[in-house]
Order: sequence, then C-alpha cells, then structure tokens
Amino acid sequence: MENNKLTLEMLLNYIHTKDVPALRSVFENFEEIDVAELCDKIENPADLLFIFRTVKSDYTAELFAYLTSSQQEKLINLFTDKQLIELIKNSYTDDIVDFLIDMPANLVSRVLNVSDTTIRSDINRLLNYKEGTAGSIMTTEFVLLQDNMTVNDALSTIRKIGREKETISTNFIVDLKRNLVGIVSIDDLIYSEPETKLNAIMHSDFITTNVNSDQEEVAQAFKRYDLNVMPVLNDDRRLIGIVTIDDVMDVIEQETSEDILKMAAISPLEDSYTNSSAFTLAKKSLPWLLILIVLGAFSTIILNRFEHAFQQVVILAAFIPVLMDTGGNAGYQSSALITRGIALNEIEKKDFGHVVFKELRVALLVGLGVGLFAFLWIFIEIATGIIVYENIGAAFSSTWWLEISKIAGLVSLTLFTAVLLSKVIGGSLPLIAIAIKKDPAVMAGPFVTTIVDASSLLLYFLFSNIIFNLY
Amino acid sequence: MENNKLTLEMLLNYIHTKDVPALRSVFENFEEIDVAELCDKIENPADLLFIFRTVKSDYTAELFAYLTSSQQEKLINLFTDKQLIELIKNSYTDDIVDFLIDMPANLVSRVLNVSDTTIRSDINRLLNYKEGTAGSIMTTEFVLLQDNMTVNDALSTIRKIGREKETISTNFIVDLKRNLVGIVSIDDLIYSEPETKLNAIMHSDFITTNVNSDQEEVAQAFKRYDLNVMPVLNDDRRLIGIVTIDDVMDVIEQETSEDILKMAAISPLEDSYTNSSAFTLAKKSLPWLLILIVLGAFSTIILNRFEHAFQQVVILAAFIPVLMDTGGNAGYQSSALITRGIALNEIEKKDFGHVVFKELRVALLVGLGVGLFAFLWIFIEIATGIIVYENIGAAFSSTWWLEISKIAGLVSLTLFTAVLLSKVIGGSLPLIAIAIKKDPAVMAGPFVTTIVDASSLLLYFLFSNIIFNLY
Repeated sequence: MENNKLTLEMLLNYIHTKDVPALRSVFENFEEIDVAELCDKIENPADLLFIFRTVKSDYTAELFAYLTSSQQEKLINLFTDKQLIELIKNSYTDDIVDFLIDMPANLVSRVLNVSDTTIRSDINRLLNYKEGTAGSIMTTEFVLLQDNMTVNDALSTIRKIGREKETISTNFIVDLKRNLVGIVSIDDLIYSEPETKLNAIMHSDFITTNVNSDQEEVAQAFKRYDLNVMPVLNDDRRLIGIVTIDDVMDVIEQETSEDILKMAAISPLEDSYTNSSAFTLAKKSLPWLLILIVLGAFSTIILNRFEHAFQQVVILAAFIPVLMDTGGNAGYQSSALITRGIALNEIEKKDFGHVVFKELRVALLVGLGVGLFAFLWIFIEIATGIIVYENIGAAFSSTWWLEISKIAGLVSLTLFTAVLLSKVIGGSLPLIAIAIKKDPAVMAGPFVTTIVDASSLLLYFLFSNIIFNLY
Repeated sequence: MENNKLTLEMLLNYIHTKDVPALRSVFENFEEIDVAELCDKIENPADLLFIFRTVKSDYTAELFAYLTSSQQEKLINLFTDKQLIELIKNSYTDDIVDFLIDMPANLVSRVLNVSDTTIRSDINRLLNYKEGTAGSIMTTEFVLLQDNMTVNDALSTIRKIGREKETISTNFIVDLKRNLVGIVSIDDLIYSEPETKLNAIMHSDFITTNVNSDQEEVAQAFKRYDLNVMPVLNDDRRLIGIVTIDDVMDVIEQETSEDILKMAAISPLEDSYTNSSAFTLAKKSLPWLLILIVLGAFSTIILNRFEHAFQQVVILAAFIPVLMDTGGNAGYQSSALITRGIALNEIEKKDFGHVVFKELRVALLVGLGVGLFAFLWIFIEIATGIIVYENIGAAFSSTWWLEISKIAGLVSLTLFTAVLLSKVIGGSLPLIAIAIKKDPAVMAGPFVTTIVDASSLLLYFLFSNIIFNLY
C-alpha cells in the first residue's frame, strides 16, 4: 500500500526508448494489477505488444488476465500463434475461460486451435457451465494424490507438479476408482513423518459442492466454515474441479452489488459502473421506472377518488409527501434488514412467523414515536404559521388548538398506522419472495414503497372522512 | 454441505445419558460451527459445561469461539481456573479478544489473571486497538524466521512452532534488528533446495498495513491483490501482527451490511438481526424517520403554498405520488450505483466531473423514456375514465384530447425534468459526501429522496402555473 508511484508516462517512455531492463524491473517492483491499470490506458496496441514481447511470460500472463476485454482482444489479434501458445501455457485455465467469454467467436476458435488437447477440453468444459454455478467459477488445476501414497511420495508429487496448480494448500486424495476419499493440507504433510500413509492423516469429512450448485451457496459455505478451497463434484460424485477463495470473494462482491442494485430498482450490470456506457445504464434503469409508474396508478386512483376531501379541507394535500415518505422509509428499513439477513443466511423461510412478530413489535415502538413526534411537529408548524391553515383564519378563534389538533391528530394517527403496516409488509415481502422462489431483493425495493404508498393514502382518506365528517 | 443431520435432541440425549463416546464422535463428524448453533439453544449451562469437560479441548476451544456472548459468559462463570487456562491455551488470541470485548469487567480481569504473561500482554494490546482498525482484526500468532536461516532451518522451525500459529501459508522474515525484510510462502519453502538461504528466495516487495489503518482499506487491498495474509506494522515499521483472509471476509460483510442499512436509513446494528431485540431495532430506525419528517417540511410547505392550484385544477393532486416516487426512484438508482462504485473503489473523488456528466447523459435517455411513456399512460388513464377529469365532463367536447394532453404534457414534462435533476443530485451527493469526508451511504439514501421530492413538487407547480395560467 505504499509503493513508489509508477505512471503511464514512465511506462510509455520505457517502451518508446526500448528500455527493456527498466520495463522488466517494473514487473519486479510493482503488482501486476497496478501495471494493468496503466496498460488499460495505452492506446497503441503495438506499445502493449512490446511489453508482452520483452517481459517474462509468467508476469505477462498475469498482466493479461487483469486487462480489460477490449485491450485483451486487440492484443490477441496482434499475437503470433507462438505468443498465444506461450500465454495459454502460463495462464490458469479459469483465467483463460474468463477472457474467452467476452471474445468474438473467431478468436475463441483460434485460442482453442493452438491449445493442446488437455487444455482445450478443460476450456471447452468450463465454457459450458451455466453462469452462476460452481462449475463456472471452478478451476481444473489441483493436486491429485493416491490414498496409498506416503507423505514423502505426496511431497515429491507436489514438488513436481504443484507449481502449475492453482493451490497446494489443500490437496485431494482419490482411491483406485478415482473417487475422492479425503483431503490433506500442506500443513498436515509438513507436520507428519515422511513414511506415514496419506489415509492415516487425511481428513475424510470435508465440505463439497456439486458442479451445478448455485455459486451463492458455495460462497455461504466458504464463509460459514472458513474454507480456502472447496472440491467440486459432478453428478457421479467424481472430483472435477476446485473453487478457491479469491474467486469466492469476487462472487460475494458481485452478488452483493446485484442485491444493492435490485433494491434500488436497477437490473444487474454485466460490468463495472465505469465500464458501462450511459446507454447501458439507461437500459438497466428505465424499465423499472416504467413498471413502477404503472403500479403507481393505484395511488393516483385513490387520490383521484378522494378529490372531494381536498376541496373541503384543502390543507390535507400538504401532508401527502410526509405520509408517503415516512411509510416508504419505514417499509424500506424493514425490507432492507430482512433482505440482508437472508443474504447472510441469518434468516430463512421458516423464520417467517418470528420475523413478522418482531417487525410488529418494532413497528409499535417506531409508530408510537413517529406518531407522537408528528403530532407535536405539525401542531407547531400550523400554530406558528409555517403551514397556513385556512380553518383557523388570521385571528385565532377560541377553539384554534382544537382545529389544529384535529389535523395533527389525523396525520399522526395515519402515520402510526402506516408505519405499522409498512414494517409488517416490508418485513414479509422478502420472505414471501423466497417462499415462492423469487428474488427477495427485487421485492424488497421499490415494490414495498409502491404498496405502502397506496395503503397509506387510503388510510389517510378513510381517517379524514371520519375525523372531518366529509360527505 | 451434505452431512447427516445432528439435532439438539440428539445432543441433549448424549449429555443426559452421559454418553461420552457419542459426544466425542459428534465433534469428529460435524463442523464446530454447526454444533455451536445447537449449543446456543441449550438452556442449562451445566449441560454445556458437560461438553467442555468431556470433549478434547482443541475442539471445545473452537466451539467456544462460535458461541453467542451470553452462552460464553454463562460458561466462563462455571469454569474452574484450570478449565479457563485450558481454554485460553487452545484458543487463538484474536478469538479470546473477540469474546472478551462483550464480557463484563470482572470476567475480563479473571481471564487476564489466569493467562500467562505473553498471552496477557497480547490480549491487553489487542483490546486497546480502536474498533475498525487493522489492529482490532489482527492476530499476533505468526511464524517469524531469521533471514540467515536456510530452507531446512525454516521448515524445522515451522514444524516446531507452526501448529500454534494462525497460518503457516505465509511466514515472515526479520533481520537481526527485528525489521521485517521479507515474506516466504510455504510453497516456496517446499519447492526450494534445503540448503538455500531464505534471503535468496524470500519476496521483499509485499503489501503491508499500519496497525491504525482503516480495516476497510485493508479489505480493499486483500481483494485487489488476492492476498491471504497481510503483515501489520506499528509506527516504527516493526511487525506486530498479521491479518488473515477469514477476518477480512467478516469485515467485508460487516461494512456491506452497514452501507445497506445506512442507505435504508437505519443506524448500523452491533449484532445480527436475529440477535437484536425489537427495542434495539426501533432505536436504530426511529431517529432517522424523525429527521426525515422534519426535512419533509419543505415538501409540505411547497404543497401548502400552492393550494390554490388544486382548487382550480383538482386533478393535479392525483399525480403527486407518481412524481414523488419516480423522482425518488430515479435519484436512488443513481446514488446506489455511485455509492456501490465508491465502496468497490471503482469511483473516487476525482471522478466527480465524469460521473456527473455520465449521469446527465443517462438522465436524458431515461427522462425521455419516462416522459414519453408517462404522456401516453396518463392520456389513456384519463381517456378511458380510470382517472376522472372534471374539465372533460361526461360528454366529450370537441377539444377533449387537447384538455387531456395539457394534463398529460404537464406531468410528462415535470417527470422529464425531475428525472434529470434527481439523477444528477443522486449521482453527486455521494461524491460530495466523500469530498467533505462524510459517509456516502448516509447521503445516498433517504436524503436524496427528500431533496428530490421537494424539487419535483416545486417544478410541478411552476409548470402548472404556466400551462394552466393559474392566478
């Protein structure tokens, strides 16, 4: 977090003066991701190619994985087959797949053509797992050991093949039929005597996942059990890949972003905000606003049907915003709490009763607080003339406080009931969503507001009909 | 993810029948966190104590770390000093500190009294780091090597002391003055020849953090550089602890939860939803609702001042909800996007100009879409009589479409302008917040709605004054 600064100018200068030693030392002194961020800004792909031609390929393979897809595409188009082979040899299969997903078909087939058979079949398989499954985030590079090996055999195997694998922190033990029978950490290998058999020290109770499982479930298990690696099994329960914690962290971020955006009525973005065009952002935002305008018709119709109320007591209209906002905010509070609880696996479908009962108690407390405060606040607003109330007139009558109390009482009562209703609706909707297998975040967001708005307005007019005896 | 089920009944049955072998096998077959979840439901602390008396203490130490604070407190009160010493010896220092934070002072001093001097001073130091700093999440148990050691020496040291340390995946190399000069992974030790000196294979460019750094910064660095461990230095740049990825994952979850709750106008919870009482939840929610009611006065005052508009064109009131909701939703969309971008380090203060310009372009597209759609939608609503408009009357006059167009045009124009304004305000506020060192999530949430509501209403009345020529 405290390196000397590397700038784009420095980097371009090294390239243009063909200062290869300086360029190589950049990769020794800086993290690849930091260099990649500068490389993304290089406009001439030939400059970028110069780096790939002169710097060691284990550095450039990592650099490549961090570039944006458009830079990757430009580069690959300039690569000779030899350079492409070198890149593939030095990259992890899951990184290759990650960049191929965004590439045009001709590039994908060129990459597949130059890859050797094993890599090609791995890439093909990984490309075919549905997005969002364990298969789509797993890698096929792990250390496989036999259960009749000794610790010494295992360590020699790891010394021989470990460098090409994504991790050696956890290693996988199969029997003669290639069934996964245990896992052994590098720690356990180091602490054990060389001649010990693996099946004496391996762990046979370990958490696995199916290749078609939801990546969110995988992430939950990583967090719950503090895992670093998880084996992925196919339907025949054979080991076909592993998921590592760095990929899980990306999944968690991505899922959280999706939840936050859905709650804000935006469809999930495929890319970061910075890399999404204004047109894409508009396309993700507009449909939800239109749906919500259509759903807003309920509120419009309620107000329209109760027009006579405003005509008789004009001041009623002034409190519509505070009713809608408070109801909406109270409902959104509850739905955000519950949706987050669901995302963190703290709340499940079966907790429905508990959650609704708790929200009801919270709502009673909050509703009372809001109601009492609003009564005082509105009384003061009208009494001081901040809000003009014709019924009182310029000269206060002897019952002025009663007139004000009627309005303040009406708003306060509506707020109390609206908070009660909003919190119960806001707390229930996300749980109803998971019960009917819908996304809780979508239900938790603006839909809560829409329902709560209409209900609050309806309550408002029902109460005002009673209090003001409207016809 | 697919173990046989363990139930509370089974567990209590083993305890009451004093079936020690069955109890021990539970810990061999199930993950500690799963057992802990059941143990949290055990009501009689003596039952819980029985587990701690009979099961191996490396299992129970981990079990203890997963229990709720109230169960931990009950247990410790029943522990003999000997049991307490055994627990402390088998726990990681950071886990001890995590549970001590929630304990009453007399318990803390009892734990400190029975701990040996090294552990005591570690606990004391960790207890004193401010919450939210690297110091508060670090652990003091790591492997320290000398730079003049050989690979063989290093491996022997690790074999000797590694088991008590939190990790051996990364080991730390100091010179004679105890300055941190390099790190070496267990992988590199395994791949190297036994007689190689550590300073020939160690990495000397590594990411570190200061003990007082913000834990969120630490988490960002873990994600950016795909780290598993990070050394923590004091102000003299001496190594005093390490942060490991499991603690970082907790930090990320906690910070994300805080952001989501703040955006939903709730103060961060100290505990999970399930463990927070209704009273606590109310206390975290109510103040924000009251602040927002006070800020809502702007909207109330605007509506109050424009009462004459409703009296002349009654239908105007019916569209207040759709204006407020659409403006609020559009603003919230932008602020959620930007706040999340800030949390993921994709957007910084210096991007202000770019972001506002992009939001403006998005707003133009979205505003046009919303405006056109709303015009048609409202035209249809009125023409079909879903919304009653007195100006048209029962029998349509020859200019009925013109009358409807005036209303639909007014709402549509206001919506277009409101979306434009909302998205620019919603996009700017979080960035203004970080510029004045405030929390973007707090600014991004309901404050956006409040400002946007008042502006939309003001625009509505200004436009309606022009279109309907109101006095």
